[in-house]
Amino acid sequence: PLRRSNALNSQKEAPPVNIGWDSHKPIETIPDSLVRPGDGPEGNTPMRAKFEKMCREAQIMITDAISEIDGDATFQEDCWTRATGGGGMSRVLSNGKVFEKAGVNLSVVYGSMPQEALQAATERGVDRAKGMKPGERVPFFACGLSSVMHPRNPHAPTMHFNYRYFETDGGVWWFGGGTDITPSYINEEDMAHFHGTYKKVCDNHDPEFYPKFKAWADRYFVISHRNETRGLGGIFFDDLNDREPDTIFEFSKEALNSVVSAYGPIVEKHKNDPYTEQEKEWQQIRRGRYVEFNLVYDRGTVFGLKTGGRIESILMSLPLTSRWEYDHNPEEGTREWEFLQACKYAREWI
Amino acid sequence: PLRRSNALNSQKEAPPVNIGWDSHKPIETIPDSLVRPGDGPEGNTPMRAKFEKMCREAQIMITDAISEIDGDATFQEDCWTRATGGGGMSRVLSNGKVFEKAGVNLSVVYGSMPQEALQAATERGVDRAKGMKPGERVPFFACGLSSVMHPRNPHAPTMHFNYRYFETDGGVWWFGGGTDITPSYINEEDMAHFHGTYKKVCDNHDPEFYPKFKAWADRYFVISHRNETRGLGGIFFDDLNDREPDTIFEFSKEALNSVVSAYGPIVEKHKNDPYTEQEKEWQQIRRGRYVEFNLVYDRGTVFGLKTGGRIESILMSLPLTSRWEYDHNPEEGTREWEFLQACKYAREWI
Repeated sequence: PLRRSNALNSQKEAPPVNIGWDSHKPIETIPDSLVRPGDGPEGNTPMRAKFEKMCREAQIMITDAISEIDGDATFQEDCWTRATGGGGMSRVLSNGKVFEKAGVNLSVVYGSMPQEALQAATERGVDRAKGMKPGERVPFFACGLSSVMHPRNPHAPTMHFNYRYFETDGGVWWFGGGTDITPSYINEEDMAHFHGTYKKVCDNHDPEFYPKFKAWADRYFVISHRNETRGLGGIFFDDLNDREPDTIFEFSKEALNSVVSAYGPIVEKHKNDPYTEQEKEWQQIRRGRYVEFNLVYDRGTVFGLKTGGRIESILMSLPLTSRWEYDHNPEEGTREWEFLQACKYAREWI
Repeated sequence: PLRRSNALNSQKEAPPVNIGWDSHKPIETIPDSLVRPGDGPEGNTPMRAKFEKMCREAQIMITDAISEIDGDATFQEDCWTRATGGGGMSRVLSNGKVFEKAGVNLSVVYGSMPQEALQAATERGVDRAKGMKPGERVPFFACGLSSVMHPRNPHAPTMHFNYRYFETDGGVWWFGGGTDITPSYINEEDMAHFHGTYKKVCDNHDPEFYPKFKAWADRYFVISHRNETRGLGGIFFDDLNDREPDTIFEFSKEALNSVVSAYGPIVEKHKNDPYTEQEKEWQQIRRGRYVEFNLVYDRGTVFGLKTGGRIESILMSLPLTSRWEYDHNPEEGTREWEFLQACKYAREWI
């Protein structure tokens, strides 16, 4: 018998949505849209479809740009549908010349969750279950594009982004997302470029966005058990629904479409930097930290694992290789130590 | 300011016990006992001290035996005390000839937890908070010895054990523990030896123990999101308090003291086996799975991370290196595929 049928196990580990680990069916090509025609309790299908379209265009645009930077690799494309509706498409580059691993996932999810799980998946304690009876599962729709890119060179940073749109039945909706960068060493010029790009994007929409979302990223990407961040931040936001949906859509779109201009030049600049074995080892140790954050704290990963998402797409974010040395403490004053200081005390980069 | 002082973060990520990430003080040598003299609400100090003594003797005995198998490495010893009482000692071997990483941790914890966290830390829904008011934190005592050993050779399995004794105020007590093995390839003779050793240990105490605890290990060491076990099992038990404490103590003691005879001969046999690059890579992929289980599901790891345990000791269990390849599926009929089948459908080895 399959393990999931084990009574004790399924009782303790059952995913909070009504979809199991084997509920993804590979398909040859992705349909024009994974959004059900005409659905959405408030007739908000236009935003569902509009957000999906934006994600799909960005997925192609970004992976094309990364292919070009790599020079030598193509993205493997996998499409699937979900048993309860929706589906997705992963585009993953493995063993490239510049990138060890880089992937961009599109995901459209129709599911339902216990009300508590829905609260835990976001930050503010707002009522996402409007009109639902206590104990009743909340049907939801989610569409998002997420990505992690791990270059080989220890002087070329890892980058992650995720932009998503959520709705629960009852018409509660919100946007979330962000782009953040995880180098192994500090390069102030690179950080000024990356953060500067996103400050400009933010400022085009609201002068309060950058300081607020920069601080949010510094709080969010924390490996709590180590009291350090996984990288050097960027922007992060969640539960954004304090203005018109179209207004937030335009902000999300510009942020997503700025990934290549924020990150591309940094990888181009460093992809052929010389490096030592010791620098490669430090990168591997930082990749171990990346794994710790993603498996223990990352909202998207935990949400995906618990909602029966496609495992290979969710864990595509993990690096090709990583390293854990017992009680590794860089000597004070070294560049490794300086980097750790920046992970312990948030800095401004522009 | 330190990140932990951030209001939003501390509200969401605060560990459930009143002890923080910086509450471990290194000490030169460990005192004769970390158990407070005369404590325990029911005057059960004898078991606290007795269990600690057993753990400490086993820690020395096991690390000495592993040193000898390695031939080339010594264990680094780190001792600490905890701000709220108790402390511990780690003995860790890094970069040995046979072992990439092997560690044995002694831990004595005085803490307090929300009642729900205490329930989550164990399996049965019994009342561990007898006499406590709703919402009141439950003071507890815990003492345990835990270990993970990762050999270099892909034909020599990883081994893990953990034996522990818990008490909450109000005099509720229980024992937990187990020893389990995680090869990268199936070797039926090895599995018969390992499981056979623990069957004998179990049978010396109760003929129902082995079938019950073997099945428990098969359920417990499951990577739910992949629907596979991390390895090939062993024994696991928790909440054991259905007979006299001394009776369970004797069982725990024999199980702990059988680690070397169960595992040692298997490593001796395979430590110099020839292997291919492909076999080493498969081992690295399985080590990635080990990381997934430990960071997402392992009760001891999650308990340690959330209760402000000593991070380096808790995460000593992670392998030196690991690997995640996108959508890696061994071909049907290969030894890698056979191993995965054994992780999907539990087998009997004796």
